Amino acid sequence: MRHGPCRICLRFAMSRLPYMPSYPDHGQPDWNLTGLVQALRTSREHTHKVRHRGRLRELPSRAVLQDILHGLACAMFPTHYGETDLTDESIDYFVGNTLNRTLNALRGQLRRGLLFLSDDDAWTSEALDAKAVEVTRHVADTLPEVRALLVSDLRAAFQGDPAAHSISEILLCYPGFLAITYYRLAHVLYAQGIPLLPRLMTEIAHSKTGIDIHPGATVGHSFFIDHGTGVVIGETTIIGNHVRIYQNVTLGAKRFPANEDGSLQKGAPRHPIVEDDVVIYAGATVLGRVTIGQGSTIGGNVWLTQSVPAKSSITQAQMCRD
Amino acid sequence: MRHGPCRICLRFAMSRLPYMPSYPDHGQPDWNLTGLVQALRTSREHTHKVRHRGRLRELPSRAVLQDILHGLACAMFPTHYGETDLTDESIDYFVGNTLNRTLNALRGQLRRGLLFLSDDDAWTSEALDAKAVEVTRHVADTLPEVRALLVSDLRAAFQGDPAAHSISEILLCYPGFLAITYYRLAHVLYAQGIPLLPRLMTEIAHSKTGIDIHPGATVGHSFFIDHGTGVVIGETTIIGNHVRIYQNVTLGAKRFPANEDGSLQKGAPRHPIVEDDVVIYAGATVLGRVTIGQGSTIGGNVWLTQSVPAKSSITQAQMCRD
Amino acid sequence: MRHGPCRICLRFAMSRLPYMPSYPDHGQPDWNLTGLVQALRTSREHTHKVRHRGRLRELPSRAVLQDILHGLACAMFPTHYGETDLTDESIDYFVGNTLNRTLNALRGQLRRGLLFLSDDDAWTSEALDAKAVEVTRHVADTLPEVRALLVSDLRAAFQGDPAAHSISEILLCYPGFLAITYYRLAHVLYAQGIPLLPRLMTEIAHSKTGIDIHPGATVGHSFFIDHGTGVVIGETTIIGNHVRIYQNVTLGAKRFPANEDGSLQKGAPRHPIVEDDVVIYAGATVLGRVTIGQGSTIGGNVWLTQSVPAKSSITQAQMCRD
Repeated sequence: MRHGPCRICLRFAMSRLPYMPSYPDHGQPDWNLTGLVQALRTSREHTHKVRHRGRLRELPSRAVLQDILHGLACAMFPTHYGETDLTDESIDYFVGNTLNRTLNALRGQLRRGLLFLSDDDAWTSEALDAKAVEVTRHVADTLPEVRALLVSDLRAAFQGDPAAHSISEILLCYPGFLAITYYRLAHVLYAQGIPLLPRLMTEIAHSKTGIDIHPGATVGHSFFIDHGTGVVIGETTIIGNHVRIYQNVTLGAKRFPANEDGSLQKGAPRHPIVEDDVVIYAGATVLGRVTIGQGSTIGGNVWLTQSVPAKSSITQAQMCRD
Repeated sequence: MRHGPCRICLRFAMSRLPYMPSYPDHGQPDWNLTGLVQALRTSREHTHKVRHRGRLRELPSRAVLQDILHGLACAMFPTHYGETDLTDESIDYFVGNTLNRTLNALRGQLRRGLLFLSDDDAWTSEALDAKAVEVTRHVADTLPEVRALLVSDLRAAFQGDPAAHSISEILLCYPGFLAITYYRLAHVLYAQGIPLLPRLMTEIAHSKTGIDIHPGATVGHSFFIDHGTGVVIGETTIIGNHVRIYQNVTLGAKRFPANEDGSLQKGAPRHPIVEDDVVIYAGATVLGRVTIGQGSTIGGNVWLTQSVPAKSSITQAQMCRD
Repeated sequence: MRHGPCRICLRFAMSRLPYMPSYPDHGQPDWNLTGLVQALRTSREHTHKVRHRGRLRELPSRAVLQDILHGLACAMFPTHYGETDLTDESIDYFVGNTLNRTLNALRGQLRRGLLFLSDDDAWTSEALDAKAVEVTRHVADTLPEVRALLVSDLRAAFQGDPAAHSISEILLCYPGFLAITYYRLAHVLYAQGIPLLPRLMTEIAHSKTGIDIHPGATVGHSFFIDHGTGVVIGETTIIGNHVRIYQNVTLGAKRFPANEDGSLQKGAPRHPIVEDDVVIYAGATVLGRVTIGQGSTIGGNVWLTQSVPAKSSITQAQMCRD
């Protein structure tokens, strides 16, 4: 969540806390550290244990994943997200060097993420290493394709917002574009069956933008989210091409299918299907596995839990005057 | 708002601004700094003065408070928020060292926060020092209890969200859990009568997550906020156990009780009471000192300003087709 | 988005990515960097080109703009946003030094922003330099006036929120105040016809607070946004004095006027006019060039697309019980 130029400092981020000089008359108090450490250990190990199968696993790092996302964005749009003074001569050196660092870091995080596979016990360490390298290569090979989709999103934003004056403005200023960029990268990992990391990646975008797109969602080309704060797009949502949505739109689940034992079915289809050329205005909430037909318009603040045919126009009941 | 691993650099964050070389033909312009500094002083001291009782007070630091919150989270969940490579051998050393630094820093910030007591003039400097140490010890002693509540929240999230695959995913990815963690820590200070710092702590969570929980709110165990952007929970809200709420839910005030002189009564009960086992869906706005009865469900986008009995199910008026 | 005390480190932020040691048995894999760099170049230069008129321009830096906004806030409120331990003796030195660094940095970013003028080809390099200096001086000269407006906003927040206990609390904790501060500074540049930078400045506030105020909006004095997450205020909105709005309020466009060729008219009036003394509660969506008359109250979650006269009170249709 926070950064500094030195990786060592990052890992010992607590060392950033200032040395607090003792007040002259009092000295540093005794905090009973031994007792506190013991009480927290008891909570961790016995009374309130949440450790996975009793083992410690090397965990992915949110800070490193954030750098990886930034690095991949730099490789795709080097002048806007990388260095502001690149020239035609220097740009490829920057891209190649950034890719090299980023892919090495991605490989390391993938290796950690793979420990969250439900059958991770069945893998040898070498097999996990090889899988991490294989998926890293796949991400790298997919970058031009992801960039092509993102350029379609840039053009959709430019055409869809009268306040936009240049493509650079969208690249630098539009939170929706950042959220879509991180989602599209996370979705590549999700489609490869990688656990945990894709969610961490879209959550980094959520924290920066207020836009929460689950990496499992399927999103067509030319997607535009304007303003975007409060947008939620659930795991099994399917969105077509040329769709435009505004702030505070929820594409969510209405109810959660349960297994016979009452536990929730993980991953069951439960979010909306939004067909091509749909516009959904601010604050609309669409819940359940409903279909919004091609070319429909959903008005602001509408609460919708049933399918609507193509070219529908749905608005909220009118307000009253007291 | 803060940067860099070094506390000295932090305090002089402006030194991060680059040296801007003069353009060769122009040199650095004269900015009339003397006149500007004088004009700002006049605004500060005379025409638009906001200084408290005419005195300068040492103010708490948002950056240091953020480190303290992170340090307390590290002490409670060291492998997830602290270092990703801790072993059974090293973990207690990390926890003890982190606690020591964090508690020293907390003591310093408490000392500053106490200057915002309404009767701070009545305290000697030694009494303020002693109070800061006392409250720091109380926070430390309360940590295992806070951790127990947070583990109940983790389990509620895992059970309440079919998209969650592991407890680690909730610890690392769920903004609602971060917001609840910082709220529960801030509430400990609020309950001790500490001014200003608790609000600053929940506002740090608000900035990171879009979830705004006032530290004065009372929240039972097993609380789950899904997605969370746009959630607002007001100062006098009371929330029972096993409550689940979604993004953009407001538990707010309808009107503000005023004193006889027209000024607002600070702290009067004015926010909802939400009983056990209630679910409130995305975008619902509940205003005023109303009670939502045990086991009720409040639908998306509902606007509610009256009490509802136990096991109620409230939905918005249906939409119209144009 | 990124941090570090050293400008060199900042510019080469990728160097922050850790050196990942090779796994002992495998060595660093070959990533086919040459092929990847070539494929991305092809995407950039040919298949999915978005470069402005085929030229590279030196781009503004979001990180530097963030420092500039922080620097200007420090100059106006030095004890709250600058150093927490300033004394009556040291405060003017801090303000003068901060202003000097900030104005130099602003000049440099303005020089880059001016390359986004639609007629930038018509300017000589010297004319752009001179314009950057002129606008920087204008911003500096306007600071006392901006500070006066901000003090009116502080007082409106203190009077409008029963949970506020001091002006310091609002300066340090209220995201609405940060968003208004950055908006008021960005609006000064917008009014001077500067492209791109004002949007980047308000987007920095949006990212920190969830409050999205377009720099083109016109906002009177004593403006208060409470909680604020999800607030959107569009480019041509006009807001009077003593207006109070809550989280998730949208003041947006209903439809976008198009030119004869079908392209959107940039900058046409399309957002609401909100007169003096209006209150708009959480989640209300007001769309189009409608007028909300002086002294009106708009209730939570209302969807409003028509004008209402002075002193109106508008509420949503009531909910149903299933």
